[in-house]
Amino acid sequence: MSKTISILGSTGSIGCQTLQVIDIARDEWEINYLTVNSKIDELEKQILLYNPRGVAISDPHYYREFKKSTLFKGEILCGEEGVCEAAGDSRNTIVMSSLVGFSGVMPTLSAIESGAILALANKETLVSAGEIITKAAKQKNVPILAVDSEHSAILQCLTGEDSSEIEKIILTASGGPFRQLPLEEFGEITLAQALRHPNWSMGNKITIDSATLMNKGFEVIEAKWLFDLSPEKIDVVVHPQSIIHSLVQFIDGSVKAQLGTPDMRVPIAFALNYPHHIAMNFPRLDLLSIGNLSFYPPDLQKFPCLQLAFDALKVGGTATAILNAANEIAVQEFLGEKIKFTDIPKLIAKALDNIQNVPHPSLDEIANADAETRAYVRKEMH
Amino acid sequence: MSKTISILGSTGSIGCQTLQVIDIARDEWEINYLTVNSKIDELEKQILLYNPRGVAISDPHYYREFKKSTLFKGEILCGEEGVCEAAGDSRNTIVMSSLVGFSGVMPTLSAIESGAILALANKETLVSAGEIITKAAKQKNVPILAVDSEHSAILQCLTGEDSSEIEKIILTASGGPFRQLPLEEFGEITLAQALRHPNWSMGNKITIDSATLMNKGFEVIEAKWLFDLSPEKIDVVVHPQSIIHSLVQFIDGSVKAQLGTPDMRVPIAFALNYPHHIAMNFPRLDLLSIGNLSFYPPDLQKFPCLQLAFDALKVGGTATAILNAANEIAVQEFLGEKIKFTDIPKLIAKALDNIQNVPHPSLDEIANADAETRAYVRKEMH
Repeated sequence: MSKTISILGSTGSIGCQTLQVIDIARDEWEINYLTVNSKIDELEKQILLYNPRGVAISDPHYYREFKKSTLFKGEILCGEEGVCEAAGDSRNTIVMSSLVGFSGVMPTLSAIESGAILALANKETLVSAGEIITKAAKQKNVPILAVDSEHSAILQCLTGEDSSEIEKIILTASGGPFRQLPLEEFGEITLAQALRHPNWSMGNKITIDSATLMNKGFEVIEAKWLFDLSPEKIDVVVHPQSIIHSLVQFIDGSVKAQLGTPDMRVPIAFALNYPHHIAMNFPRLDLLSIGNLSFYPPDLQKFPCLQLAFDALKVGGTATAILNAANEIAVQEFLGEKIKFTDIPKLIAKALDNIQNVPHPSLDEIANADAETRAYVRKEMH
Repeated sequence: MSKTISILGSTGSIGCQTLQVIDIARDEWEINYLTVNSKIDELEKQILLYNPRGVAISDPHYYREFKKSTLFKGEILCGEEGVCEAAGDSRNTIVMSSLVGFSGVMPTLSAIESGAILALANKETLVSAGEIITKAAKQKNVPILAVDSEHSAILQCLTGEDSSEIEKIILTASGGPFRQLPLEEFGEITLAQALRHPNWSMGNKITIDSATLMNKGFEVIEAKWLFDLSPEKIDVVVHPQSIIHSLVQFIDGSVKAQLGTPDMRVPIAFALNYPHHIAMNFPRLDLLSIGNLSFYPPDLQKFPCLQLAFDALKVGGTATAILNAANEIAVQEFLGEKIKFTDIPKLIAKALDNIQNVPHPSLDEIANADAETRAYVRKEMH
């Protein structure tokens, strides 16, 4: 039986690995749309290899460039509308949403509206608009399968389990590259240092979010929506080896964990074949060569972003959208070497303090909060 | 909805903890039979607290003693036949078999024949007669729910999973009290030292089996039968903290583990309520206070019993019954301080070398192998 997939953000880290997973059983898959922001050269290579029915290019400049030069005969869509059209195409049986940032919200909603299974690697979507997204998915009876290793771990631990028997979930955090750095040296962290993640090779934005632990904060918020849990039922523990990807504690005290090597193709394959495991030959976990698994509490003084995320989740409304937008701009500026590492949480805290919160926001109100926050943070910096 | 349980070996460690678990939701349970070998004073206390419909006392001497003195008005059964009658009573919805040693085989079969759910804490039953027991359970469509922490861990990891997707299982072993003892000092191990298990408080027989790692060898054999796996798909890893109770690796490389405090009431409760977790207030696992989980390969020079178990499993037939019977006598003699710790594997190896193996044995052939082995080992010692 063949499955039809569209991949939003096909040239990104998750997009490329999704295509690698599809390669394992290539004849089971039809590639519907591949969408990119600007990487049209890489898109051309993917077109040759995967022969999609269509493509979408969200940056209009690169859309025009592509149109001029390509020999591709399939449909070519433009802009965010084009990405939404690809996501919402009724031929999709599954949509992999591996967009980065708030831009993932509308295409994700389009995919849900079309009734496709949603494999969601774009965590900012749930962080900004978790209530709306999960409500829409429930109405359409569409599963949302998280693709990051932590939520995939939770999903795997919950296979066959009754969610009413969950006592709490425990998200593990590697602690990032600065776990052991003394607090007083955080002001001197360079971009190059922050981009050197100890365990995972990922895109730049998420690598910085991992270094600040904001990524873990986002995962707490995601977990709340994905698994319908109150914030008190979500714990974070630092586990530098990143071998235990997360844990679920049940009401009898029994704890289940999912473990593995740091290979995103495993959670991607699980989302693509949920709830089944498919045969894959990637290197296996070897507990004997690892020898030791260790656990520490997260240091909220060094990593105030994690506390900000818990706080925003408790406040609710547009607070998490403000958190996300402020973080997105701050990280962008840090990547451009315009601000210091320690400025990231400061800017986010200021945004949360100064921008009006809207409870139970509509999508427009979230988009407004997002835009207002971006403008606010940019102004604060200059 | 009330469930009816009989507990075989109700005054043993597992029997007593089973009653503690029943206390959590006392009104959901009817106690059918409690059976003991000889501890009639403790049985009297349990009768007062739990008001069983009947009891069985397998040692005829204590049966007569009990009969003389008791005020109990319920049915009083005698001998192994009495225990079998209790196990096979058609009123049972679940039978907890926490007998010790080969004596558990016939009552376990009786329970299966009656169609009751079998909670099995008596590992020697599967070690000796795994093929017959699992075949009978399959015919009667009766689940066998293992109660030891390792197999309960596997069972929990397999909840909702497809067994065809198992790549291997990994049983964890504490390594016992002598993990770090130099090989040359094994000859001087005393009984008191062997009875001091680092993590679990259990009966004497199983505590010695844990010190020799024969317990882990038995669990390998049990796992083969419980989960229908070839020996190559069963690994043992030493994990001194006994926090990860066991793991399952799937064909995509994903690994699931069950973790917990060393409290047998958790696996007992899981078997009694399978596949559900019930609310229990026992102390929770605290990864932060544990801090470290470590893993080592088992040392087969120090612990030849584990190798003997793998070898017997590969040979098949009556080899595992010989393994079990020789171990039972050897441990008995070690508990009586008649032989040295290092004599245990030597006696077992001799028995395996010298007693004729019968492939695909009948129950009679297993019983013969069992009796022959006991006689052989006793003769070897004197």
